[in-house]
Amino acid sequence: MPAKTLGELAEYVGGRLFGDPSVVIKSASTLGKACEGDISFLVNRKYQKQLKTTNASAVIVGKEIPEGPVPLLIVEDPYYAFMQIMVLLHGHRKHKKVGISPRASISDSAKIGVDCHIYDFVVVADEAIIGDGCVIYPSVFIGQGVQIGNDSIIYPNVTVYDGCKIGNRVIINSNSTIGEDGFGYASYKGIHHKIPQIGGVTIEDDVEIGACCGIERGTLGDTIIGQGSKLGDLVTIGHGTKIGSHCLLVAQVGIAGSATLGHHCVVGGQAGVVGHVTIGNNVTIAAQAGVVNNVPDGQAVLGAPAIEANQGKRAYSMIQYLPEMRQNIRNLHNQIEKMGPSLEPDSETPSEHDIEP
Amino acid sequence: MPAKTLGELAEYVGGRLFGDPSVVIKSASTLGKACEGDISFLVNRKYQKQLKTTNASAVIVGKEIPEGPVPLLIVEDPYYAFMQIMVLLHGHRKHKKVGISPRASISDSAKIGVDCHIYDFVVVADEAIIGDGCVIYPSVFIGQGVQIGNDSIIYPNVTVYDGCKIGNRVIINSNSTIGEDGFGYASYKGIHHKIPQIGGVTIEDDVEIGACCGIERGTLGDTIIGQGSKLGDLVTIGHGTKIGSHCLLVAQVGIAGSATLGHHCVVGGQAGVVGHVTIGNNVTIAAQAGVVNNVPDGQAVLGAPAIEANQGKRAYSMIQYLPEMRQNIRNLHNQIEKMGPSLEPDSETPSEHDIEP
Amino acid sequence: MPAKTLGELAEYVGGRLFGDPSVVIKSASTLGKACEGDISFLVNRKYQKQLKTTNASAVIVGKEIPEGPVPLLIVEDPYYAFMQIMVLLHGHRKHKKVGISPRASISDSAKIGVDCHIYDFVVVADEAIIGDGCVIYPSVFIGQGVQIGNDSIIYPNVTVYDGCKIGNRVIINSNSTIGEDGFGYASYKGIHHKIPQIGGVTIEDDVEIGACCGIERGTLGDTIIGQGSKLGDLVTIGHGTKIGSHCLLVAQVGIAGSATLGHHCVVGGQAGVVGHVTIGNNVTIAAQAGVVNNVPDGQAVLGAPAIEANQGKRAYSMIQYLPEMRQNIRNLHNQIEKMGPSLEPDSETPSEHDIEP
Repeated sequence: MPAKTLGELAEYVGGRLFGDPSVVIKSASTLGKACEGDISFLVNRKYQKQLKTTNASAVIVGKEIPEGPVPLLIVEDPYYAFMQIMVLLHGHRKHKKVGISPRASISDSAKIGVDCHIYDFVVVADEAIIGDGCVIYPSVFIGQGVQIGNDSIIYPNVTVYDGCKIGNRVIINSNSTIGEDGFGYASYKGIHHKIPQIGGVTIEDDVEIGACCGIERGTLGDTIIGQGSKLGDLVTIGHGTKIGSHCLLVAQVGIAGSATLGHHCVVGGQAGVVGHVTIGNNVTIAAQAGVVNNVPDGQAVLGAPAIEANQGKRAYSMIQYLPEMRQNIRNLHNQIEKMGPSLEPDSETPSEHDIEP
Repeated sequence: MPAKTLGELAEYVGGRLFGDPSVVIKSASTLGKACEGDISFLVNRKYQKQLKTTNASAVIVGKEIPEGPVPLLIVEDPYYAFMQIMVLLHGHRKHKKVGISPRASISDSAKIGVDCHIYDFVVVADEAIIGDGCVIYPSVFIGQGVQIGNDSIIYPNVTVYDGCKIGNRVIINSNSTIGEDGFGYASYKGIHHKIPQIGGVTIEDDVEIGACCGIERGTLGDTIIGQGSKLGDLVTIGHGTKIGSHCLLVAQVGIAGSATLGHHCVVGGQAGVVGHVTIGNNVTIAAQAGVVNNVPDGQAVLGAPAIEANQGKRAYSMIQYLPEMRQNIRNLHNQIEKMGPSLEPDSETPSEHDIEP
Repeated sequence: MPAKTLGELAEYVGGRLFGDPSVVIKSASTLGKACEGDISFLVNRKYQKQLKTTNASAVIVGKEIPEGPVPLLIVEDPYYAFMQIMVLLHGHRKHKKVGISPRASISDSAKIGVDCHIYDFVVVADEAIIGDGCVIYPSVFIGQGVQIGNDSIIYPNVTVYDGCKIGNRVIINSNSTIGEDGFGYASYKGIHHKIPQIGGVTIEDDVEIGACCGIERGTLGDTIIGQGSKLGDLVTIGHGTKIGSHCLLVAQVGIAGSATLGHHCVVGGQAGVVGHVTIGNNVTIAAQAGVVNNVPDGQAVLGAPAIEANQGKRAYSMIQYLPEMRQNIRNLHNQIEKMGPSLEPDSETPSEHDIEP
């Protein structure tokens, strides 16, 4: 690993340095675990008090953080600078250069680009096309007619069904499935008849997909994961759904079929979106939310059913007061009864049109 | 792909045709994307306005839809007719006929029926029995003593543990696991002791299981997925649970152990059912519901905790009014105080038996 | 399978016997399905009435259960005794002794202990170290530098990324992924930049991990699954999270990154825990709960957002009364209006500081 001086790092990320520029940085670590030679970072205020006790040789901070006893590298976006330094010091995963393993099973009609590394027990089916510089780990299945761009990485035990299209610099983590049939059945007289799913899946450039995800192929058109979007582990995307570019879908998210998400949406863990809805751009969906309606551009929603986030935060946090509220209503009722029993309402049964706002 | 005339299709599905029966249909597509030669369909009213703009050569509709500018094929159940036409025009996935790959690892004591296609890197363990016409994709593991019926399809990287029974025409999608040990431990003095899970899994005829599912084997008896039931992606079924016939379990559903579902139940995405409950026949469980009690035949439930659906829809949609309600209660309290302070209740602390209904 | 007499079993588990000690027990079964020669058990009161009708040759019960027509084996902890007898009569899964398959792909620089069984199509990468007595099922991938202790079992199609550490007697079920990159991106000007994840995963001794789980590697330090903890199917653990010892995480649980769970925590199915929180020891988190704050030792929580369990049980079960409550508030309002309209509040708009408790 290449060591750098703090001065070099400050210049590299364009930050201001409060401390000795000749300090040598070899690695990165958390505030709590850092030793001499480590650089750390502070983004979450929760950890701010650790600035006083950390053994890090330097800490990357945002402009507003007061100087600590440890050398500080002050940047506009500490997390981004941390990423830059992590890449500089550690780089991304290196893949062993194995070429095309004789233990892989590659169809004669498949086309493999230059500088690809295809490990043992991979199957590449007929007419698949794999671009240059791809890495395909053991026991991956690349179905018939699949197209993969350049510099993509597919980790072990991934399955890509026939005809799916995967872009450049895509990363698919282990045990994920791309292009299984959509959950589409016509139910007739109590029997569920499978509908052929003739659409595919298109995964655009720079997408990363977590482990154990399932991306269904479309019934008629393609399911699309937009450029630069990142999916966590155990995410499932329904058939024909379009995820826009640069979205973040955290672990265990489920988006049902024929939904549309705009660009730069963030969907929290375990959240669900029903089918056939349209989610705008820059939408934030909180963890565990259940989205059942369209959401306009820029809105944040939470809860199940999901509502606007500020309103929702207040409303859902008030569920805990329900017993108290119910009792208060009873108390008020009793007080009023004592005050004027003749004024009792006609009926205790609420009428439908009264209740709906 | 075989092209058909619209007249032929109308006859095939038993529908009435409003338009030229000689129009040639080659494929199917969505209303929005269809071109000349495509047939489309309208089921969800949301898309009805697209009838006016679609380039489809015909659209399958239900009886009640007014005639559009495009030729209409009117049927009782448009989605079922669409399925029939999809199968007619496109058929289901064709599997390459590979026979039994020399790169598969088949135990000498396993029995494989006729016309099976077992791909590279499949393992079939001792005493497994596979019927006729099965397709087993790469890197599937078929454990010891597993029994599979005829015409079943198992996609890549599926694992079937020892002794599981899989019926006829079953489809298991990639990266799913059948028959892992149930989550059963006896906790004693702070240690969780694993209980041998000596039951198995029975998957009846015509079941389809999505990608990345986990179906636990039973502790004592079998976990059962009933005939014709369909499971979406990332579904998990607990040990000893019985899913009735012709159920639909959408993606990310979790059914805990020792639960019983009747036939023709529909369970929405991300819904959960606790262990040891009995769900009747024809029950509908909404997406993200949390079912903690038995549900009688024919009932629909929603919410967490799940309650009857009509009641639940009204109740859960009212969470958003909690802040307003709480404020209203305070206002009422203040008004009453002004009216007659001597009538204050004895205590503000709600007593337990008052609160419970 | 070794048969035992009831007397032998009573002595083995240290229980009192009400019945003939010479009765022969060959297997275990549920109360409902047991035949002659089976022993059954009663833990869940729901099944108590089956004591009268069971065909079991004996039933293991707790002290407080009245004597039935069937021989009873009375023990302090029936479930623990049941486990002991299951292990005695049936044992745990036997693994075929295959040695190291010539169809596995083992790096020359990997070290494999004695008495290991490595099945076909396994890949063990460079510098991996596997202890004694391990069983590695087909199509498992063991990445570079992975360390595995003794007597661990890894089921088919599991992927272990580079550098992860797995202890002794660990069980990892099929299609699970250990050590994929954490979901870590620095978002800058609308682009999500991948942060190298240089931490690893440490799975301590006696852990069992279900099928289709994803355990992310840490960004800087290790993600840790503590000794004796058990994870169900489709569980996902975020990067850098520490799960204490002897925890139970039921199926589909999601714990976000940088969270800390103490020892002996129980997390119900589909529950979620946000990142960066600290959960104490002996905490119980109910199914589907959404934990967004720290939880102290010994507390039980439920609901989303999660609150203390007793309070939460009452509060969440009251959502169903919301329509009635809202109507009651309106009725009260109307009554008060009739009583003294001059006492109307100044405004119907709630002011922010009034509403928050």
